[in-house]
Amino acid sequence: METTTAVLHAAFFEGNQTMRLGPCAPVEPAAGQVQIRVSYCGLCGTDLHLFHGAMAHRLRLPHVMGHEMSGTIAAVGAGVEGWREGDRVTVRPLDPCGNCPACRAGHSHICHNLKFIGIDTPGALQGLWTVPAHTLHRLPDALSLRQAALIEPIAVACHDVRMGEVEAGHAVVVIGGGPIGVLVALVAQARGARVVLAEVNQFRVELARGLGIDAVNPMETDLPGLIGERTAGTGADVVFEVSGSAAGAEMMTKLPRTRGRIVAVAIFAEPPKVDLFRFFWRELKLTGARVYEEQDFEAAIRLAAAGGLPLEKLITTVVPLGKVEEGLRLMERGGEVMKVLVSCAE
Amino acid sequence: METTTAVLHAAFFEGNQTMRLGPCAPVEPAAGQVQIRVSYCGLCGTDLHLFHGAMAHRLRLPHVMGHEMSGTIAAVGAGVEGWREGDRVTVRPLDPCGNCPACRAGHSHICHNLKFIGIDTPGALQGLWTVPAHTLHRLPDALSLRQAALIEPIAVACHDVRMGEVEAGHAVVVIGGGPIGVLVALVAQARGARVVLAEVNQFRVELARGLGIDAVNPMETDLPGLIGERTAGTGADVVFEVSGSAAGAEMMTKLPRTRGRIVAVAIFAEPPKVDLFRFFWRELKLTGARVYEEQDFEAAIRLAAAGGLPLEKLITTVVPLGKVEEGLRLMERGGEVMKVLVSCAE
Repeated sequence: METTTAVLHAAFFEGNQTMRLGPCAPVEPAAGQVQIRVSYCGLCGTDLHLFHGAMAHRLRLPHVMGHEMSGTIAAVGAGVEGWREGDRVTVRPLDPCGNCPACRAGHSHICHNLKFIGIDTPGALQGLWTVPAHTLHRLPDALSLRQAALIEPIAVACHDVRMGEVEAGHAVVVIGGGPIGVLVALVAQARGARVVLAEVNQFRVELARGLGIDAVNPMETDLPGLIGERTAGTGADVVFEVSGSAAGAEMMTKLPRTRGRIVAVAIFAEPPKVDLFRFFWRELKLTGARVYEEQDFEAAIRLAAAGGLPLEKLITTVVPLGKVEEGLRLMERGGEVMKVLVSCAE
Repeated sequence: METTTAVLHAAFFEGNQTMRLGPCAPVEPAAGQVQIRVSYCGLCGTDLHLFHGAMAHRLRLPHVMGHEMSGTIAAVGAGVEGWREGDRVTVRPLDPCGNCPACRAGHSHICHNLKFIGIDTPGALQGLWTVPAHTLHRLPDALSLRQAALIEPIAVACHDVRMGEVEAGHAVVVIGGGPIGVLVALVAQARGARVVLAEVNQFRVELARGLGIDAVNPMETDLPGLIGERTAGTGADVVFEVSGSAAGAEMMTKLPRTRGRIVAVAIFAEPPKVDLFRFFWRELKLTGARVYEEQDFEAAIRLAAAGGLPLEKLITTVVPLGKVEEGLRLMERGGEVMKVLVSCAE
């Protein structure tokens, strides 16, 4: 169904590392759905992976990416209660089956048949986006739409920190200082933990320091020695592996205290070597942490709205919808980039 | 100080894969110690490792091994309360420092400076053995001294099962069917779990079956498929890695349910490859489990004394003190051996 307003656009991924801006007919919200006028959409490491050809079997080209967004409701489908046009929202982009062993056990965020909205179905890099109403979270007035595009990665960090059972006073190490690592460090600090972040990219080390994080380069600093000093020989309470590197997997077991915890946050393309002897010797614990649950989104919104997180400093670049490929290339090169937002409003 | 009784002997490890039976002057119990007349002492995989030259820096040759034992108190040192000559006992062979971060946190069994009695100090392969009184556990009359020599490895299994939070009705997989793997399976079954044990040595598969364990050979059986069938696609609640093999480390992540647990029991000489992506994807949990705590010894004694464990079938060989080397060679060859006991009474 065509709208009477100006033609709307989407950023289409056409495969072969190519993005194309093109007209995109908005999808009317069916029963249980809402249509959102997208304000901002962040680019995620996962989007870059898709751009590079990963998970190609899950995409129907041309594909619209994007799952870190903010916007206002433009239309509400039949049977949707509690939401109306103009509501400021973000989307928890998970569509679980409701019927698999994980869903039945209450872990629908890691449903065996999970549809990730923006990968398995079209994403938010378009003017009007239609999603199930059960994915919505309300944005408080105190939170700008620009900063609200960071809620999704903050929710990842809130989930990780919750899975790691971080408490006030804990000694925490975050290995890897990309956007998620930095947010894990910031959320852990907000929970009262004493955090050291390890990152090999000097720009990211400096950026993290500018955010108030005690960041070190493990190529220059003896990290186990530093953590030993800081904890009087006890070791870290919780270590987050957010680098996805063999070096990170090797480092992660050297840092925790007896019965300390490691949270596996990063995606490892290949199984790395892991020192299981150290797990045995110190009775270490490891837990994987994937995406987020409803409470993590709510926690992220509260934390962001309270103003304690230096979110503007995390946003290093904002590009228009027609420049998504440039944004991805910027991330690809690494260097002086943290979070790239796309302005989707037209 | 010499006793007036017949000369007592010990099995001395002289290095270079050599054992020698020789006279051994008993050590009078100092304050806080007791002297035990050793009845039986089991040979452990760790003893075989020592025999093969492992942990040589911890031994003072000639070294007396042995830490899985039963006996009766022969003499009591000054200040020891609650124990007297003739008491039937086993020993929890851990001597923690009491002052390191692990001890201060209440995890003295994995003390940073732990002395393991039988490695760092002389062990039980001798007629009279002197140990700190804090290591003693009382044996009930219902438990024979022969079977009581298995309390130490049963306590390992009780600790592992407790660390794995095994509950009645749980689907449990044990990878590796040596003495500890078999005991983990038996203890988990005693807790009401449904257990599958995977073992590549066909003698051990048959022996485990004879003990009432559902044992399979993963070279012949599709283990992930079997566990999938048994759990209607859900996966195992708890997986114990007791093989210490690269194949076991690879298999362990294929079996658990969403948020299921893996317990790392085996000692890995080299860090194996571990599928951290699977930890992320299913939010799996891993915990190391080392030795035992006081409550695990008490649980093991209760379980063994209740008569529900087929302990006699686990004891495949009993040798005299002069034949320890033959016992170790038997274990070394693998094949038709499970637990080898040494009869230490003279």
